[in-house]
Amino acid sequence: MKTRAAVAFEAKKPLEIVELDLEGPKAGEVLVEIMATGICHTDAYTLDGFDSEGIFPSVLGHEGAGIVREVGAGVTSVKPGDHVIPLYTPECRQCKSCLSGKTNLCTAIRATQGKGLMPDGTTRFSYKGQPIYHYMGCSTFSNFTVLPEIAVAKIREDAPFQTSCYIGCGVTTGVGAVVNTAKVQAGENVVVFGLGGIGLNVIQGAKMVGADKIIGIDINADREEWGRKFGMTHFINTKGLSREETVAKILEVTDGGADYSFDATGNTEVMRTALECCHRGWGESIIIGVAEAGKEISTRPFQLVTGRVWKGTAFGGAKGRTDVPKIVDWYMNGKIEIDPMITHVLSLEEINKGFELMHEGKSIRSVVVF
Amino acid sequence: MKTRAAVAFEAKKPLEIVELDLEGPKAGEVLVEIMATGICHTDAYTLDGFDSEGIFPSVLGHEGAGIVREVGAGVTSVKPGDHVIPLYTPECRQCKSCLSGKTNLCTAIRATQGKGLMPDGTTRFSYKGQPIYHYMGCSTFSNFTVLPEIAVAKIREDAPFQTSCYIGCGVTTGVGAVVNTAKVQAGENVVVFGLGGIGLNVIQGAKMVGADKIIGIDINADREEWGRKFGMTHFINTKGLSREETVAKILEVTDGGADYSFDATGNTEVMRTALECCHRGWGESIIIGVAEAGKEISTRPFQLVTGRVWKGTAFGGAKGRTDVPKIVDWYMNGKIEIDPMITHVLSLEEINKGFELMHEGKSIRSVVVF
Repeated sequence: MKTRAAVAFEAKKPLEIVELDLEGPKAGEVLVEIMATGICHTDAYTLDGFDSEGIFPSVLGHEGAGIVREVGAGVTSVKPGDHVIPLYTPECRQCKSCLSGKTNLCTAIRATQGKGLMPDGTTRFSYKGQPIYHYMGCSTFSNFTVLPEIAVAKIREDAPFQTSCYIGCGVTTGVGAVVNTAKVQAGENVVVFGLGGIGLNVIQGAKMVGADKIIGIDINADREEWGRKFGMTHFINTKGLSREETVAKILEVTDGGADYSFDATGNTEVMRTALECCHRGWGESIIIGVAEAGKEISTRPFQLVTGRVWKGTAFGGAKGRTDVPKIVDWYMNGKIEIDPMITHVLSLEEINKGFELMHEGKSIRSVVVF
Repeated sequence: MKTRAAVAFEAKKPLEIVELDLEGPKAGEVLVEIMATGICHTDAYTLDGFDSEGIFPSVLGHEGAGIVREVGAGVTSVKPGDHVIPLYTPECRQCKSCLSGKTNLCTAIRATQGKGLMPDGTTRFSYKGQPIYHYMGCSTFSNFTVLPEIAVAKIREDAPFQTSCYIGCGVTTGVGAVVNTAKVQAGENVVVFGLGGIGLNVIQGAKMVGADKIIGIDINADREEWGRKFGMTHFINTKGLSREETVAKILEVTDGGADYSFDATGNTEVMRTALECCHRGWGESIIIGVAEAGKEISTRPFQLVTGRVWKGTAFGGAKGRTDVPKIVDWYMNGKIEIDPMITHVLSLEEINKGFELMHEGKSIRSVVVF
């Protein structure tokens, strides 16, 4: 079949809208019509050539929502017509990682996914007879895409695609970091570094679970209003402040330090500040942001010996097929908000504008609707 | 009163055995006759001038056992004749840290303890009219010492002083790191870096809780025999190996990485290896060793984002007055061993020899008996 798609033919070039050939689903795979897709920093990170393992030509996009149109042999958990969210972190429920119960980082198809291939080692996309690679196992910048059955979460049919697609990455990453990774409890103090599309979701996750102080940190004063919309109780603009000054301010507001801090910036210097603003004895800092290749985090070991904990999270620690439908419920029941975060709705032809808006800091989330 | 003590008059000089003046216990304090004291790396770290906050002249020593001889006004939890272990990490049961239930790092007397003073801001020791400072709130290199009531753990009277003094630091630090900080469970794989007086206790802690593989790492081949005595199942001599080579070997032996790793070396490069040998998705690395002043740990944030956790422990996460008596029971009941680790028993006059044996790697633990 044919599908319209925005293709990244090479790094550092705008996406091109072309018609691709798409092979149907093989055994264990499903064909999904993507109805809407968000544009995330990770797409830009790859497109801009920062990811040393980026593969081109490929169909980017990993934050989508759509409808199953066809299933391959042996597929039992979804059927044509089901509404789904593609999962860049699959959930096979069979591998050592899934069975451990300790992590969401399923390893069933990791090797091929990292190479831009389907589990059988081939691509479903091609253009003029040449293979076009998959991206993060999703490729939601295509109107139709093929996914392994273990990489789709079935969701309720009354959830709008245009907003629920955001649950495919940003919402789950931020809310999940609070709920699954940190397990923040009511009355605890939370500090969030970076009030973009992830940080705002950390804030609303912290609000949902009843955190006490929710302190937002950014160097862009305009983000204060955004933070307050979603439950932020204090804002600190750290523009021009040293690490020590930032830490001192946070210790003052929290009476000793954060119970949990979250880095949603990807800046390794900020990650250090996030750790060091944690409360002595028990404060935990969670790295969400993806750092530039080659960058390292550091601190004095004394910070850990005196009780601070440094951890990270991917896809908010969410087990996709199990947890994503729950987050859709939270959205539909009004426990969390998504609509105000979707600042721009674009057509596929306008997708490059979405990247520009993100780079200029003008959008929280741009969504492409097909 | 008078007391014999080994005094550190200045950094980088041998201790001098002199007779000090000792003032009796004030309100909330107790006078303890120290019967035995271990010599720990932390004493050497301070004596050798590596601790930028080291205070001289002082009475070092923080790993003792003795008998309460006198109590000050208001002391209710111990009485003369009680056997006790001094606690460099006190347990007041009243401060924010103690009440949090999340940490053993009681802050009740932290400010004065760090300055070598009793909680009222004065010293009990003096020599020729000049104050001699306390050390880690213990000063067990003196035959008699004065301690705050919250800094003594009452222990059973049938426990020998010469061995149970080791529970005042090394045993609790190593066993506690496993039991309290990591909370290792039966069947999990543990990797221990550095098979000295702390690392061997990590090993026997891991054995006690039923760990599966217990992998010891050292660059001294002689330590293999020591490790196996206490439950080590695999030994890797990493002399000459790169970090990548060490990690690869551990991943092979553990089929993917350590569930828990422990650094008992104080070397920040080793701390990084200890983190990176942890299993993707859930492995936790616990820093026990005290690093040289100014040294920092680093890694790529990807290590944490993919599920590894970096934490530390002080005094094995043990709440002294609550947990130390339990560890004494474990020793007396044969759940853990101490006797074979006490490689040298010295008189106070021989105390400098104990430091030499440690520096030469010839002792696991030297104990001074009064």
